[in-house]
This record gives sequence, structure tokens and C-alpha cells, in this order.
Amino acid sequence: MLSLKSTSSERWLVQVDENLPEILIDHAHCEKKAASCAMNLIFGYVENRELCVEMTEIVNEELEHFHMVLDLLDRRQIRFRRLKPSNYGPQLSEHIRKGEPVRAIDRLLIAGLIEARSCERFDLLRKHMDGRDPELAQFYDGLFESEARHHSTYIRLAKAFGPEQMIKERLHELSEIESEIITRGDSLPRMHS
Amino acid sequence: MLSLKSTSSERWLVQVDENLPEILIDHAHCEKKAASCAMNLIFGYVENRELCVEMTEIVNEELEHFHMVLDLLDRRQIRFRRLKPSNYGPQLSEHIRKGEPVRAIDRLLIAGLIEARSCERFDLLRKHMDGRDPELAQFYDGLFESEARHHSTYIRLAKAFGPEQMIKERLHELSEIESEIITRGDSLPRMHS
Repeated sequence: MLSLKSTSSERWLVQVDENLPEILIDHAHCEKKAASCAMNLIFGYVENRELCVEMTEIVNEELEHFHMVLDLLDRRQIRFRRLKPSNYGPQLSEHIRKGEPVRAIDRLLIAGLIEARSCERFDLLRKHMDGRDPELAQFYDGLFESEARHHSTYIRLAKAFGPEQMIKERLHELSEIESEIITRGDSLPRMHS
Repeated sequence: MLSLKSTSSERWLVQVDENLPEILIDHAHCEKKAASCAMNLIFGYVENRELCVEMTEIVNEELEHFHMVLDLLDRRQIRFRRLKPSNYGPQLSEHIRKGEPVRAIDRLLIAGLIEARSCERFDLLRKHMDGRDPELAQFYDGLFESEARHHSTYIRLAKAFGPEQMIKERLHELSEIESEIITRGDSLPRMHS
């Protein structure tokens, strides 16, 4: 699916079922982090007009999603609180190379892979929740499309920083790494555990 | 005006007239910094629901303004580029006290004062540009109202962190400091020089 090299295992759905409130709180944090990551890209590449326009749209959408998750938490009387984040993001960030344009390429491709993984997991969740929890099934269904769109945006923007073949190869490498991280998982129940 | 203890001097308008392209580029940076500052407040106070909702709205508006300034730069064929920022923001930030809730109060009041100063300067600019540069006069006129609104939002949010009298006194102190900084000015031509 998208650029991913693996599908999420049943292990993760067991974590979701056993820790749903924590997964929902972490989801809110993920939307916030996605907004912040897009904002940092604006800061880093202020002279790239296309990137700034696209990132602004993503900041707005991610913050809208953040509020949608907060509203969902409210309806379920789950208090939003700080959570230790999963090790997924930091482990991916270790692979961002220094120096431009490779740093930009890696940041964009990794952001694209995170969107791809979120998309894959929302797809899994909307099917998993169908029948069990119709509100959640519908909620994830609504988010699925925008994650896929954000994935394409990030990959397309990366292609502006280097030859297409080089970007494809790097995406392949990073995707292998992403797949290993997600297969190892995380003992904390999180969106990307 | 608003909570300000001084009005901008003629000295600043001379800087504007002599360095308009640089002032416009700095304005774009200011909108970006305002968005980022609001985003950081979301990060810092995730459990404060009202603050998160208000800050999200401000992030969206500031990024919209950022694009409005970029469009203006495009129309005038001015290339957006990095600029050494003015010393206004860093000098104000030195006065943020450590520990909560005083840190929150100071961050919000300072953000409110920056909005107030921007509002005062947009008002000055819309009058100054009237006749000379109608496009700019209209542009600043359009931004004036939202700065005043953001000012009120920040001050109101600060009041949720402590007794009204204490907040008023601190606003008075910070406003004195802001006024000294703006009176000293900055040799670099900037929105807050």
C-alpha cells in the first residue's frame, strides 16, 4: 500500500482493543506533531514557495484533525493528557542525512512514509471497528483519504529536490527501514506501535 | 492604544520609506513566527482546551496572512528570503519567568503585546500609505482588525492562569518593557524596529 513494504500485524490490533483510550489520546498527539512537522518544513525551506503553500494547507488540516480527535475524546469523557510518545518517529528521524538537498529529501520522504503508515492503519481500523464501534469506524474512514493525499504531496515535493530515480531509491531504502521499525513494534500502545 | 505605553515614532516611518522591500519581507517572517508561537503554545498547554482551540484559529489566520504577504511580494517582484530578525522578540522573551503558571502568563501577555504593537503599526502604515501606495494602505487596513482581535484573545487567555489584578499588574510591567524596547529601536529596518 502506497510506498509501504509491510502491513500492520494482528499484534497491533490487540494493543488497540486493550488500550483504546490511550490509542485515541496518542492519535491526538500525532495530529499535533504532524502539524508541527509541516510548520517546521515551512521554516526550513521558506524560499520554496510550492512547499510553503502545501505545508500551510497540511498544517491547517492536521490541526483540524487534532480538534476532531479532541472532540471525540470529550464525547467519550477521556481526558487529553501528555503521553510518552512511541519510538517510531525518533527512530525514523535518525535516518535523516545531514546537508542539503539530502536533508530535505529525507525529511519529506519520512513525513510521506508516516502519512502512508497512518493511512494503512486508518484503513485497518475502519474495517476493524465496523460493527463494533460505528462512530470510530466512520471517524477513521473520514481521515483515511487525507492521509493518502498528504503522502502523495510529501513524495511529490521530495522529487523537486533531486532526480526522480535517486528519490525513488531513497524512498525504497527508507521504506525498508520504516517496515523494520513497525515490525519490531513498541510495548507502549500507540498509533505507530 | 490597546495595552501599549507608547506610540511608534516618526523614526520608524523613515526606516519604512527607505527600506520598504525589506520591511515587507520581514512582515512575512513575522506572520510565520506568529503562527509558530501559537503552535508552541498548543504544545506547551495541551491540556488547556480553550487555549488549544484559540491557538489553532490563530495558527490558521497567521499562515493565511503569511501567504497574503508572499503574494504581495510576488506582485512586486520581491524575492522572499531569510533575514536577520529584529532584536524585539528576543529582548521581550528574556522577561518570561520560569515556572508555571507565571511562564504561561508571561508568554501569553508578551504575545498579546506583540499583536498590539503590530496593530498600532498597521494603523500607522495604513494612514501613511494612503495616497502614496493604495494597495499597501488597503493591505494593512485588512490586517489591522485581526491583530486587535488576537491581542484580546491572548490577554483573555492569560487571565485564566491567575487573579485578574495580578495579570493586570504584570501586563503593565511588560508593557513598560515593550515600550522601552520599541523606543530604543533597531538599526535594522524591521516591522518591530
